[in-house]
Formats: sequence, structure tokens, C-alpha cells
Amino acid sequence: MNKVQIIHGPCSLESYQQMDQIIHELLPISNVFRCGIYKPRTNFDSFQGLKKEGLQIIHDLKIKYPQVKFCVEITEISQLKEIEDIDIIQIGARNMQNYELLIAVGKTDKQILLKRGFGSTVSELLSSANYIKAQGNSDIILCERGIRTFSDVGRFTLDLAAVGFLQEQTEYPIFVDPSHAGGEVLEVTRLTKAAVAYGVDGLIIEVHPNPSQALSDSEQQLPIEEYKQLIAKINS
Amino acid sequence: MNKVQIIHGPCSLESYQQMDQIIHELLPISNVFRCGIYKPRTNFDSFQGLKKEGLQIIHDLKIKYPQVKFCVEITEISQLKEIEDIDIIQIGARNMQNYELLIAVGKTDKQILLKRGFGSTVSELLSSANYIKAQGNSDIILCERGIRTFSDVGRFTLDLAAVGFLQEQTEYPIFVDPSHAGGEVLEVTRLTKAAVAYGVDGLIIEVHPNPSQALSDSEQQLPIEEYKQLIAKINS
Amino acid sequence: MNKVQIIHGPCSLESYQQMDQIIHELLPISNVFRCGIYKPRTNFDSFQGLKKEGLQIIHDLKIKYPQVKFCVEITEISQLKEIEDIDIIQIGARNMQNYELLIAVGKTDKQILLKRGFGSTVSELLSSANYIKAQGNSDIILCERGIRTFSDVGRFTLDLAAVGFLQEQTEYPIFVDPSHAGGEVLEVTRLTKAAVAYGVDGLIIEVHPNPSQALSDSEQQLPIEEYKQLIAKINS
Amino acid sequence: MNKVQIIHGPCSLESYQQMDQIIHELLPISNVFRCGIYKPRTNFDSFQGLKKEGLQIIHDLKIKYPQVKFCVEITEISQLKEIEDIDIIQIGARNMQNYELLIAVGKTDKQILLKRGFGSTVSELLSSANYIKAQGNSDIILCERGIRTFSDVGRFTLDLAAVGFLQEQTEYPIFVDPSHAGGEVLEVTRLTKAAVAYGVDGLIIEVHPNPSQALSDSEQQLPIEEYKQLIAKINS
Repeated sequence: MNKVQIIHGPCSLESYQQMDQIIHELLPISNVFRCGIYKPRTNFDSFQGLKKEGLQIIHDLKIKYPQVKFCVEITEISQLKEIEDIDIIQIGARNMQNYELLIAVGKTDKQILLKRGFGSTVSELLSSANYIKAQGNSDIILCERGIRTFSDVGRFTLDLAAVGFLQEQTEYPIFVDPSHAGGEVLEVTRLTKAAVAYGVDGLIIEVHPNPSQALSDSEQQLPIEEYKQLIAKINS
Repeated sequence: MNKVQIIHGPCSLESYQQMDQIIHELLPISNVFRCGIYKPRTNFDSFQGLKKEGLQIIHDLKIKYPQVKFCVEITEISQLKEIEDIDIIQIGARNMQNYELLIAVGKTDKQILLKRGFGSTVSELLSSANYIKAQGNSDIILCERGIRTFSDVGRFTLDLAAVGFLQEQTEYPIFVDPSHAGGEVLEVTRLTKAAVAYGVDGLIIEVHPNPSQALSDSEQQLPIEEYKQLIAKINS
Repeated sequence: MNKVQIIHGPCSLESYQQMDQIIHELLPISNVFRCGIYKPRTNFDSFQGLKKEGLQIIHDLKIKYPQVKFCVEITEISQLKEIEDIDIIQIGARNMQNYELLIAVGKTDKQILLKRGFGSTVSELLSSANYIKAQGNSDIILCERGIRTFSDVGRFTLDLAAVGFLQEQTEYPIFVDPSHAGGEVLEVTRLTKAAVAYGVDGLIIEVHPNPSQALSDSEQQLPIEEYKQLIAKINS
Repeated sequence: MNKVQIIHGPCSLESYQQMDQIIHELLPISNVFRCGIYKPRTNFDSFQGLKKEGLQIIHDLKIKYPQVKFCVEITEISQLKEIEDIDIIQIGARNMQNYELLIAVGKTDKQILLKRGFGSTVSELLSSANYIKAQGNSDIILCERGIRTFSDVGRFTLDLAAVGFLQEQTEYPIFVDPSHAGGEVLEVTRLTKAAVAYGVDGLIIEVHPNPSQALSDSEQQLPIEEYKQLIAKINS
């Protein structure tokens, strides 16, 4: 089994059936699943997630799969009281410096996956982690997901040097999100292989049973078969 | 009188006496004042603002100066119910894509000053403005405050081209914040002159009666006399 | 008369008639003219300049206008022996770290206008100036012309902070090139006003009698009348 | 044997003995060697290379090792007539848009390794390759070596997405230079592993028998044993 920790799953939770299929297929690879239920979208008229309906689906899935852990992004303090079934709280890139939210999740006893903002330095990422830790919660994963640069190729430029630096400077596991950095399937697979070879502690990666029909980010989610082959290759 | 609209005042509201002095001195220049009472600071142990005590000071100052308008940054939805005395709500660079907050302020009838994130494109700034407008509030000011670049001088690189583009593409007033871009007094004065000559609609600028004693951002706040000379020069 | 030094003229020298008209029209504003005769173009099949034919035109124009100084970019050491009529040698952004060329121009007694590379730091610009100075030539102008950033508006992002820093740190005159930063007429005029208000020592700016017919960079060259109005406004 | 092509060797050629040792040690890994003899250094008083003395050393080494190919950076057209013993001409990042030099090497029948400028887009890299190709020489290697970003860690940010894009869009082999991107030994080894896993066609990497005594870039050159272990790991 691979030493790289994996969090996988769809960009958005879309239905019980969708998530049930994904868990069934991917559970042999990792028991930690991601799925968006509160979706922070750049455009206000894009799909914003199933919200409470999604939480009910997760509640039902945890009965069927008690060994599964769920990682869900939250975007507002008021959501905290709704997410008792969630195991890992994700703070997304856009909220990395939403300090009220950082303080609030720092008061929970859940694991926090904190993504680096695409315009933020590594120092600022560490300062944001300190907001969480100062509340008493040091069960934190830091995640590099690509930064804004002048480059005319790719979606974001994956800053692998941040991973090595953070591994040397902190005790936290350092993850990479190749899906948001790569932006399309082929590049996501290449960046995943690169990140694992570089030495990341973990990956958070988007997988969907039918990406072309996905309600969000359809281009960057890996189809299940392609994803299984990628994981087999990484583990070989 | 100058055609450039001005919002001025200290980085942080520190006391009734501090703000009373500033208003007394600067009211002839503009009746719109900024002052931080909820301070989003990169480090969790920096001064975080007077919060409710600050709101009481503003309440008292509005009785003494009924013609004065206050612009205050908020960082969390729950603050909205406390700020009835505030005229202009500022959404800071770090919260430009805090969509829950954008939706919440879009439901108020207050003017919103929305700052561009230092890692955000102009397109994303417009998308964030659309979140506010979609709730029915189109009384929005957009503000360029400098972006992250590789440059080894200055604090942020002021992207003046964003101002011209936004003036051509939108109906909103476009402001510049020279204080956060410049980072120190001499550069702030130079950028202020540059921004006005470029053709901005307005400025939001930090002024403090005694910058070296300020509780936050002491290097970038202009002393009152230096600020008055700057404004006199701009208006000449 | 304005205290800002001005170098003006067309992107490319196209004919005796073109340059004669420009000099005739603009001589009252400044007697220093720019015009490309060796043109470094991103695409190999773009117009590359008149080269020796252009040098002959300059030779003839200097007889008619003995008070005029010419600023011409060179791109190769071998060109040095051809340019005796040239008063100011421009080293362009793409050649800022072409050290052999820097050393060679450092051995001349001509004034050197050294542009900052669009991917170079201010420290590197100073190191490149030191290459020239170490050869005995300290008659150097440094020029900021915009840097590469992630911004989705404008052509390059003008780094005004570099100007202030260089004025404080060096004895050299610090110029701005608003034409290459702005990329189109309206933005060039706005950046010119901004740079002058900021406090630059000089401007190098592209002016053409008929920009739409220009053999290079037609969008960023100012028409003569628009340019005269801009200069009148700056001097007012 | 590894499918990734490798060019290895010291930053600078320092002596016959140094290079003889390196070749002796590394020949089993690859017969293509890099070594600087004309060194473009940011500071004019840094070591600038052995120049003609270095070319004589290469001449002598080719007699001893007829199977070895040498890759050497040139910085000026006049050097072309001196380098008959050189097999691969490197155009460095700082000269990527030195078009006169591109045209000159395009007229040779040697292989050209063209590095991307740290402030240049991938489109501009392709335009520069077109300068070479338009002269009749399409025996070109393109090389990504890191770009300037706002990141506060690492030396340059390696833009792996450029590699995938160039592999899809061109017929040229696409190399990565982990040494200049990484800047120090541990990061160079991590980036090397990442680049190979990503799928680069080749690597150009700095190796030195005694890095702490190197005349240039001592921090980023791998010691020979560490390099051999890295290659063994990549090939496993």
C-alpha cells in the first residue's frame, strides 16, 4: 500500500447514488473522501452545492460505510453547527485569511485541511495555521494547490518548493491538490506523479464517475478508471 | 475643491480622543472617514481592533459630527447586526472571495467598498461585485490596493491599469488605496499623486495624528501635516 | 518648460520624411528623439528595422537639425561601429542581461539608456548598470517599462515603486517608458500623467504621425496632436 | 538504462583535472556533459569562466574521450568561431530573446539547447525557437528552468505545466534544469525526481566533485555520490 495519504472524491456531492458509487469503487485505495456541499464559486450563478441536503446524504452514507471519513469545505462559521458527521474541515484557498473562520475551526476538535491562497506566501499560510493552533487545535494539514503567476500555460503554477519548505519547517502533513493546479485531466495526472515523486505527504484529488456530466469543474475531475490506473502507477 | 473623493483616517480606531482629533483636523478635506474596529491581521497576536468598544465611540462621534460618514471593514456576517452607525462597509482584500459575506452585505442598503484581493484578477473582482449586486445592492465602490508580484521593491505593486479598465467597463466609482500598496510614508505620497494624475475616482488613505505610536501599520500612515500638504498639492 | 526630460519619437524609423515631420513638429517640446533602426521583435518575420539605411537617414537629419540628439537601441556589439551619429544608446529590456553588450557599451563615451527587463528585479537592473559603469562609463539612464505579473489587464504592470527606490539609491536619472507598459493610446496617456506626478526624472515615449500605418507597435504610439495635448497638460 | 536523456557536469569548467574526474565518474550515466566556459554572471566581478583556456581543455578531453559530447553556453556571436569542439550550444535564460545570437546559432549545424527566460512566457520561448528554425536549424532542445513569481520559498518556481504544453505542441525534446530552479542540493534532488515523474524528455543538471570549492553556484551543484544515488533512484 502506498505511503502517500489520499483524500479523493468529486468536486461536488451531487446525489446519494453518485457518492455511493464513488465510495464503492475507491474504498480499496483510501477511506478518506472529499466532496463539496457548500461550494464557493467565482460566479454567483454557478452551482453552489447541495448544502443541508448534502449533509443528510453524508449522514446516510456514514451508516452504510462506518469506516469512511469525509472531508468537506466550509465557508461560513454558521455551517459549523451542521457538520457533526464531517471528519475533516477544509478551509479553501479563498478563505485562507478569513481569520474569523480560522478561529472558529480552531475551537473544534476536527482535523483541518488548510489550503494556501493562490496569492499568498508560504509565510502567510503558516500565520493562518497559527490562528487555528492558537485556539488549541493543532490537527492541521497544509495544502499547496498552485499559485498565480504570469505563465501562459496551466491553470495555476504548482509551487512544489513550498512543500519541501513546509515539511522542513513544520510538523504538519503537507498535501498537494493537483486537480486545481492542473485544471485538466492529463495535466492533473502528470502533476500527481510529480508531486508524489517530489515527496508530498498526501494528495487531495478530484475523481468523478462521469466528469462530463459533473455540476462543477468538469474538466479537472479524473474518471474513475483513469484515476485507478494513476494510483496503480504511483504505487508500482 | 478637489474632484477626487477621499476616505481618510487611521488604520485602527484607538480611542475617542484619537478619532475626535482626526475628524477635527481633516473634516475640511472630506467628511468620509475610515477606521478599523475589526482588524484582520496576518498574525493572530497582533492588535485585533476595539470591536464593540469602537462601535460605541463611533456612535458618540456621530452625535458630535452628524455630517461625518464612517467606512469600517467587517470580517464576519455576525458583525452586520452591530454596525448600524456605519455608513460604508469595507470588504478587505483577504475577504474579496468570502462569498457568504458578499451575499450578506448585498442584502443591506449600505454602500460597499470592495477591495481587490492581492492575488486576484480584475475579472474575479468583478465576479465578486456581482455577488453583491445580485442581492439587490449596487451601491459599490471598487478599490485597487496593489498586487503580489516578483518585484523586490515596494510592498505591493499598484496595478493602475486595473483602474482604467474598471472605469471603462463598469459604472462603479474606482478607488485606489495608496497606503497598503506603498507601505511607507514617502512612497504613499508618491503613489497618491500618481493615482490622482492617472484619473482615479477616489482615494482611501491612512492618516494618523502620531503614526509612530499607532497600534497597527505605523509605517504607512501619514502624519496629519504631511497629509494636508499632500492634499494641497493634489488640489493645486 | 517642463522639468521632466523627454525622449520622444516613433517606434521604428520608417523614412526620412516620417522622421523629418516628427522632428519638425516635436522639436519645441524636446530635442532628444528615439527611433528604432535595429528592431528586436518577438516574431522573426516582423519588421526588423531599416538598419544601415536608417543610419544614413539619421546622418542626413543631423545635418538639417544639428541640435537634435538621437537615442537608438542596439542589439549586437557589431552595430557599435556603425552608430557614430547616435548620441544615446538604448539597451532594451530583452538585452538587460546581455553582459557582453553591456561591457561593450561601457567602453564607449555615449550615454546609455538601460531598460529593466520585464522579468528582472531592481537589484538585477543595478547589477547590469554596474557592468557598464565598471568599464568607465557612468553616463547611464535607468528606465522602468513595466513587469510581468498575473494581472489580466494592461500589457505590463508599471512598477512605479522601482522609480522611487532607484532615485533614492542611485545618482542616475530614472525614466519611465509608458508606451510599452500601457500598450494602447489611452492607457499610455494615463500612465504618462501618473509617472510624471509620481516624480520620474524623464520619459521615453512613442509618437508617430500616423500610428495606424506604423510598421511596428501601431497601437501604442501616440498621434502627434494627442501627444502635444498630453505634454501641455503635464506642463500646466 | 534510463529513458530520460541527461546532460550533466559542473556549473563552470575549472580545470582539466576537474572535468577529467567528472567525466570518468559520470560517463556510465550519460556521455553528454555541460560545463560553463563563458559565464554570464549577474555581478560583473564574479568568475566569468576560463574562456579560450577552457576551450583548449575541452579539445584535449575530446581526444581522451572521443565518445563524449559537450554542451556549452555562449553569450556572444564572436564566440561561435571558437567552439568547433562543442557539440551542443546552450542559449541561457538571459539571452532567450537575444535575437542576433539566435539567428547566428540558427546558421550553424550544431544542436541548440534554448532555455526559457525566467520572465518569459511559453509563447515567447516558441517564438525564439522559431528564430533559430527559420535559419534552417531545427535541432533544438527547449528547457524549462523556473520562472519569477511572488513565492517566498525556492529560487525560481519550476513551471512543470510548460513541459507538458511544449511536448504536446512541438516536436522538440523538452528538458528541465532542476539546478537553477532549486538553488540548493536537497531541493534540486526533489525537483529532479518530480520532473522525471512528470514525464520530461531530459534533464540538464549540475554536478561537481567538490561543490563547496566551486568557482560559481556552489550551493546548487550536486556532489558526485549524491548525484549517483539520485540517478539510481530515478532508474529504479
